[in-house]
Amino acid sequence: MFKINENYLKLKAGYLFPEISRRVNEFIALNSQSKLIKLGIGDVTEPLPLACREAIKNAVDEMGEKEGFKGYGPEQGYDWLREKIAENDFIQRGCSISSEEIFVSDGSKCDSSNILDILGSGNKIAVTDPVYPVYVDSNVMAGRTGFSNEKGSYEGLTYLAINKENNFEPQIPNEDIDLIYLCFPNNPTGATLSKAKLKQWIEFALKKEALILFDAAYESFISDNELPHSIYEIEGSKECAIEFRSFSKNAGFTGTRCAFTIIPKNLKAKDSKGNVISLWSLWSRRQSTKFNGVSYMVQRGAEAVYSPEGKSQIKKLVNFYMENASIMKSSLEKLGYEVYGGVNAPYLWIKVPNSLDSWTFFDLLLHKANIVGTPGSGFGESGEGYFRLSAFNSRENVLKAMQRLTNV
Amino acid sequence: MFKINENYLKLKAGYLFPEISRRVNEFIALNSQSKLIKLGIGDVTEPLPLACREAIKNAVDEMGEKEGFKGYGPEQGYDWLREKIAENDFIQRGCSISSEEIFVSDGSKCDSSNILDILGSGNKIAVTDPVYPVYVDSNVMAGRTGFSNEKGSYEGLTYLAINKENNFEPQIPNEDIDLIYLCFPNNPTGATLSKAKLKQWIEFALKKEALILFDAAYESFISDNELPHSIYEIEGSKECAIEFRSFSKNAGFTGTRCAFTIIPKNLKAKDSKGNVISLWSLWSRRQSTKFNGVSYMVQRGAEAVYSPEGKSQIKKLVNFYMENASIMKSSLEKLGYEVYGGVNAPYLWIKVPNSLDSWTFFDLLLHKANIVGTPGSGFGESGEGYFRLSAFNSRENVLKAMQRLTNV
Repeated sequence: MFKINENYLKLKAGYLFPEISRRVNEFIALNSQSKLIKLGIGDVTEPLPLACREAIKNAVDEMGEKEGFKGYGPEQGYDWLREKIAENDFIQRGCSISSEEIFVSDGSKCDSSNILDILGSGNKIAVTDPVYPVYVDSNVMAGRTGFSNEKGSYEGLTYLAINKENNFEPQIPNEDIDLIYLCFPNNPTGATLSKAKLKQWIEFALKKEALILFDAAYESFISDNELPHSIYEIEGSKECAIEFRSFSKNAGFTGTRCAFTIIPKNLKAKDSKGNVISLWSLWSRRQSTKFNGVSYMVQRGAEAVYSPEGKSQIKKLVNFYMENASIMKSSLEKLGYEVYGGVNAPYLWIKVPNSLDSWTFFDLLLHKANIVGTPGSGFGESGEGYFRLSAFNSRENVLKAMQRLTNV
Repeated sequence: MFKINENYLKLKAGYLFPEISRRVNEFIALNSQSKLIKLGIGDVTEPLPLACREAIKNAVDEMGEKEGFKGYGPEQGYDWLREKIAENDFIQRGCSISSEEIFVSDGSKCDSSNILDILGSGNKIAVTDPVYPVYVDSNVMAGRTGFSNEKGSYEGLTYLAINKENNFEPQIPNEDIDLIYLCFPNNPTGATLSKAKLKQWIEFALKKEALILFDAAYESFISDNELPHSIYEIEGSKECAIEFRSFSKNAGFTGTRCAFTIIPKNLKAKDSKGNVISLWSLWSRRQSTKFNGVSYMVQRGAEAVYSPEGKSQIKKLVNFYMENASIMKSSLEKLGYEVYGGVNAPYLWIKVPNSLDSWTFFDLLLHKANIVGTPGSGFGESGEGYFRLSAFNSRENVLKAMQRLTNV
């Protein structure tokens, strides 16, 4: 009889977003007339930039000509896109990342979970708490954890609490760690990490021969010039860090699908016999065998992000969402809320008032203001007592939502 | 210190296509003037159908309007595409597959390797020999095999030889098997499996509580009305088979990326405690956590495959390649070659004449006719003495290649 991967049975059955849907649907059934404003999921709402759309349509036309038709592309992405990424996102920021070190993919979620394919079992893994659930769930599925407790924390993982007491900065642990997931600007808290703090993590990783999985999906929302956009701005990082990037939020590609992952060529591991192994080679082999590259036209769309028109259109998009964030932050603060994030990230992380728990506050907002947010406890035990609001919405909805909050 | 997945070190370092490239490049360096015709890799060459291009461009325009913009789509694919697939590819052929059982993805290669995520270790796995290398390599990477021998066969896998002596039909093994990979029409041999033969495999799987992974990527090239296009045409298959399908070859999507996998809802497994587990649920969870769906515009392009215009354009495409195959088959046979495949599949599988080995014949074709094919031994030990030619090329190249063969 064939056997299944029983690690899947350890997963808490989609406790967060399905539970939100359940409560929302229940509400709608009883209040069909009311207009909900959804500030929960981190999905963009504004049109795909014109430069990207034009590039995609041109690519579609090319595919209609015998001479322009493209079959299988390189699994790692086309050189013309990888070169633009290297130049604009790295070289121009002083990071010596070459196009060969960039692997184009169909999503950061895919990459940040698939990366476990090339890593071994027996690694001691640390995540922040609260945390983007994919880091945890992909480890559970791969059998790298034990079972979870009632609050959703898994045995075998090291949780590094980030909360207002520590300025939402994970503290360097005293114990040995092999893999560390860091996401900054942070989802869900909107917190950032300074170069100095990030340097401490790199020093820790180099000392422990640990690997940092750095998720920079929200780097374009940084407004503070002192903050790092890439981990490769910090010395030593090319020997200990993989970085995940995405076109999802800055260029509105959540439905179009394009992202990339950076694995420096001098990022080395050792096998159990002490042989030096290149992670770049392992990931190349993984992608060549289990992936077939991103749609040609989508890659052309992503390339247009780096054209002068593309850059200006994307800047406008980012500014638009960050104006939303700013409106939300000042409105909430005026109402007396304690608000974190929302300055260098599109997420606002609110301390739930009156010692209510996250789900009680969720119900309160839903019923009194018809606003859907995300309970902080859904991102981990230490998220209890917090609440996430996303700035990805129309201006009209944002203003309306803030108005409604005055009645809560 | 962090640990890598050492199973990757068992992989034969891309022995087939890199070695082809090496020999081709060496040849080019010495014979820069000659024009190579590549009939090796199974990549399409003709333009993307107009119906698909128009649908994609319309979808891009939609993404430029606030009302039409699409963010994250369902990870399993949009309902409108899944419904068209269910209706056209299954219901109309008498297979009771519902849209919910269809998971849209960015490629069959991805799905047929990622499927191992939900399956356990300890399964006894059978593949045909020769075989599409991804089935084997993905098992090696997932630690489901031992090491390989000199000829590239891995310890722990059961290889079912398919050759001219058994009409390229894998024989039901006497031993216990938990997972069986079947690809028909077959890559690389172009062979097919009748309904009666497929029924024997389903009976075997039901008896042994085994799972069949059925790759039907080439079903649209079937011309014989008696042959099954889907394993679900056979009774009992919904209790024991997963099927992989693709738009790559029929609609020229190799560079556009869209495929789908069918997991019937009544396909059940048991965990080690004897609890009944639905594979559909496990794959749903896998895709929701580790995948973010296929590009909206690409899904619209795939939907157009099922429009009246799309259907007729795709029929022409398939016919064009199969005319190539027919020209190749008759030319080769006239020259005295023993040729298999090429009737219900776009691949011709040639018995190498004069007892030469596959690589010697590769060099002969390269140097005497400037044709690049694929040595059969690259697909497995039992492929030794065979050679694959692909019908995916322009008519001009096919005619020229056949002309050149008269000089070999």
